[in-house]
Amino acid sequence: MARDARIILVTGGARSGKSALAETIMARFPGPHSYIATAEARDDEMARRIAQHRARRGPDWNLIEEPLDLPAALTRSAGQGARLVDCLTLWLSNLMAANRPEDQAIGALCDTLSRPSAPVVLVTNELGLGIVPENRLARRFRDAHGWMNQVVAARADEVWMAVSGLPLRLKPEREIP
Amino acid sequence: MARDARIILVTGGARSGKSALAETIMARFPGPHSYIATAEARDDEMARRIAQHRARRGPDWNLIEEPLDLPAALTRSAGQGARLVDCLTLWLSNLMAANRPEDQAIGALCDTLSRPSAPVVLVTNELGLGIVPENRLARRFRDAHGWMNQVVAARADEVWMAVSGLPLRLKPEREIP
Amino acid sequence: MARDARIILVTGGARSGKSALAETIMARFPGPHSYIATAEARDDEMARRIAQHRARRGPDWNLIEEPLDLPAALTRSAGQGARLVDCLTLWLSNLMAANRPEDQAIGALCDTLSRPSAPVVLVTNELGLGIVPENRLARRFRDAHGWMNQVVAARADEVWMAVSGLPLRLKPEREIP
Repeated sequence: MARDARIILVTGGARSGKSALAETIMARFPGPHSYIATAEARDDEMARRIAQHRARRGPDWNLIEEPLDLPAALTRSAGQGARLVDCLTLWLSNLMAANRPEDQAIGALCDTLSRPSAPVVLVTNELGLGIVPENRLARRFRDAHGWMNQVVAARADEVWMAVSGLPLRLKPEREIP
Repeated sequence: MARDARIILVTGGARSGKSALAETIMARFPGPHSYIATAEARDDEMARRIAQHRARRGPDWNLIEEPLDLPAALTRSAGQGARLVDCLTLWLSNLMAANRPEDQAIGALCDTLSRPSAPVVLVTNELGLGIVPENRLARRFRDAHGWMNQVVAARADEVWMAVSGLPLRLKPEREIP
Repeated sequence: MARDARIILVTGGARSGKSALAETIMARFPGPHSYIATAEARDDEMARRIAQHRARRGPDWNLIEEPLDLPAALTRSAGQGARLVDCLTLWLSNLMAANRPEDQAIGALCDTLSRPSAPVVLVTNELGLGIVPENRLARRFRDAHGWMNQVVAARADEVWMAVSGLPLRLKPEREIP
């Protein structure tokens, strides 16, 4: 494993242990740590989830809330300690809900990741492994999301997938196809 | 591979070959084997599926049907030969349909797995890799199910995922994140 | 990796980079290459997707369009260069939409794959990793599709899964369960 990895992507299904895995990886880096939250507590379900994650991380994290302009949040915090972004899926969902052009935003994220900065661990979801959604918007989201995951994974030094709480390494690749 | 593994979890998608993989693993252990079925033949689709599984296993299995009190079934059979539990997903679904508190039941399952006993192979599903379900109950099920998979996987000596009928080992982990 | 593999299956979620991975694998084989397309441009979404794939492959491919009789298309092209079939999921969907018995068609595909021929790379989807679909037809499709993936994977020399654009090898298996 490249212990000097700077960009690390953690993917996985819902409730697969992605955030916990990302926090384990953050422990490689000396503090202070920043937590870049893309979630907005729009309903009770979400508020509870946010509170659970916060309780698990403990109080020693610098919290940055940024539902939309993630590239700017990463640029502003580039000179600080390691950052955990949780998560890209909600970020994309927020962008689309706000009618922001997602291709442009994903391009800006990639540009930001290409510049030298403190380490960053990004959490995302795998969500294209079910039946094709009947809802057209869901299909559009699934397509944009898959493309986002691919371009971020291509720039990442390490990619992990959480399955039933267990880590599976996807990058560096084990084998060349 | 730890050939003396006592708790083995087999996960995977629908029709991914999970049950067949679990039966292959059971062949490590000398008979007699018990099959702990959590399914109830509530409709034709389910009755057909149960009959197919039974035909493949053959008649030499001791059948235990237990849709709800899986911890008790495991405790009662602890001194017998190896057990195959098929599956945790239906068990959780039965619990929620019967309004039993699932957190308590999952906790009791973990307690039971912590005690010395004959080997047990547990089948479950990975079901959090699609688009967020629109149905609130489905989201609650998905959350509880993901948590169940994580806590059982944490107690398991081995975890396998079936994909297109092929086995992928998740635990013992290949790499430390 | 068996460099003389003749049947190679590439699976993965929606927008996971399956087609690009399959094209990378095709580069192992000397040209000319044939592209067996099972898609029909029934709507704008699909037409756009087909055009994107075609643009990426470039013009040097021999295009064979065959939405239904894939075994015949494979037999006819058996003496030519390597073939890329994209994809089995749409083929199965076309069969079911046309009320063709899918078990028979999948059996015929397996027979065809068992006969000596030029190499073939087949693309399919993993789609059983979400919540159980409420729609009965979707459940039937998911079941038939999972069975198709299993029988084709069993006949394949190599199986890869694309996740976030990254290749994960499933076969030859890494470990015996």
